[in-house]
Amino acid sequence: MARIINKDTIVCMSLSARPSNFGTRFHNFLYEKLDLNYLYKAFTTNNLKDAINGIKALSIRGCAISMPYKQACIEFIDELDVSVQSIQAVNTIVNTDHYLKAYNTDYIAVEKLIKANNISNKTPFVLKGSGGMANAVIGAFYDAGFKHGIVCARNQQKGEALAERYHYQWQKDESTITPEQAKLIINVTPIGMQGGSEANQLAFSETIINHADIVFDVVALPVETPLIKYANNLNKKIISGADVAVLQAVEQFILYTGVTPSEELIQQAGEFARQA
Amino acid sequence: MARIINKDTIVCMSLSARPSNFGTRFHNFLYEKLDLNYLYKAFTTNNLKDAINGIKALSIRGCAISMPYKQACIEFIDELDVSVQSIQAVNTIVNTDHYLKAYNTDYIAVEKLIKANNISNKTPFVLKGSGGMANAVIGAFYDAGFKHGIVCARNQQKGEALAERYHYQWQKDESTITPEQAKLIINVTPIGMQGGSEANQLAFSETIINHADIVFDVVALPVETPLIKYANNLNKKIISGADVAVLQAVEQFILYTGVTPSEELIQQAGEFARQA
Repeated sequence: MARIINKDTIVCMSLSARPSNFGTRFHNFLYEKLDLNYLYKAFTTNNLKDAINGIKALSIRGCAISMPYKQACIEFIDELDVSVQSIQAVNTIVNTDHYLKAYNTDYIAVEKLIKANNISNKTPFVLKGSGGMANAVIGAFYDAGFKHGIVCARNQQKGEALAERYHYQWQKDESTITPEQAKLIINVTPIGMQGGSEANQLAFSETIINHADIVFDVVALPVETPLIKYANNLNKKIISGADVAVLQAVEQFILYTGVTPSEELIQQAGEFARQA
Repeated sequence: MARIINKDTIVCMSLSARPSNFGTRFHNFLYEKLDLNYLYKAFTTNNLKDAINGIKALSIRGCAISMPYKQACIEFIDELDVSVQSIQAVNTIVNTDHYLKAYNTDYIAVEKLIKANNISNKTPFVLKGSGGMANAVIGAFYDAGFKHGIVCARNQQKGEALAERYHYQWQKDESTITPEQAKLIINVTPIGMQGGSEANQLAFSETIINHADIVFDVVALPVETPLIKYANNLNKKIISGADVAVLQAVEQFILYTGVTPSEELIQQAGEFARQA
């Protein structure tokens, strides 16, 4: 039977220019399974300041923040968690008694995945991309003590700025990268993304992938991107975008509710959310 | 099966200092029965301006406004419907593309009940009360052309001000009221309200009730207040607070969704909402 919304139901939400159904389905699935009196709904806005102040005034418990609001929202926040301080990008707001604290659970998820996969910070990596998510990912690697990194990005201005911020190198393309520099390769571009113009392409050249030990694709849909599929066939160590998407959503869920779901429920919620 | 909230679900809400479950249950019941992709949730706030601007910025479709925000919200509204203009009290905000129009569906409900019950505007009435709801009710009677009215209120300042605004008389108590002045009697005080300190009392003296033709009690809970019960036993014409509560909520529902529910569904929704 449908759970009945009442005056005491706690509301969580998301804000992005183009809302998806992932978060709404993920969180509501878990609220129902765990019998928590919460509801979750994706929103967009034409006025970020009024939207964030409204969240505060209405005691909306939590809000996921997506593009293009991750930096812009910072000025309306009361406190930045350590996960935001180095990368200066927010993806989660927690509202406790009209006091807003901002987190970046993408950063937290990558931090946890580095540890869970026992990746040594002596591993040299190449990261492709230069957007907001690239910033969160590279910040987590930097803070985990990774010294040898290359940001590979066609956009020189953004790529160079991102690399310099974390004292890494920038390179325009893969042509000058040696296999020794790329033991860990990380894709944070839309290459391989379902519905995109490069959906069928490999994010790195076969030569680079063949020589890498660990392959990390931040693209979450499909779960098996061309890069992941190719690397799987070579029995490489894999971290997928689906892992990041689910893990960061779980971190949000715990921040909002204080409840940690079981691994089995998390997996079910991830599968349910991806059916959107 | 539970209806699944998604990114396209339209959100409606209420704002009051002490939210009840009536609106949340009434609207969500109808959304589900009519298969409308809407959800409704009661909120309170510590900052009315930010709350209303947040509603606007988040494209929340509609908001019921209760005490103590009915007058205070007016400055944040873009347009006042005619139902607000005379009484200057809002109980409903409709948001269309970030443009807020305010209504008073209590006023609209009373206006409709006067017509539906064929009450002649030559009927002299006595209204007890001087609060915000008394204002909405008396405004509807005034605008319907009722010339002979008495506001009966212990609070002289508020009672006199309300009476003068609509060119009616004020009297402190019933002792000086003649049966001829009280063919229609209207209770807009908490007398007879479930859980209140005067729950078991009659809102008017037996003498006054005995001589009245029409008895209107705005108290919605219980459906049968002592006044309604007493008047029913005398076969008086009755208008109950439950009628007002449901009718004003239906008006909100139509404003938010554009859909008019059947009488049968409205009755079911009212019964479901009162179980809160």
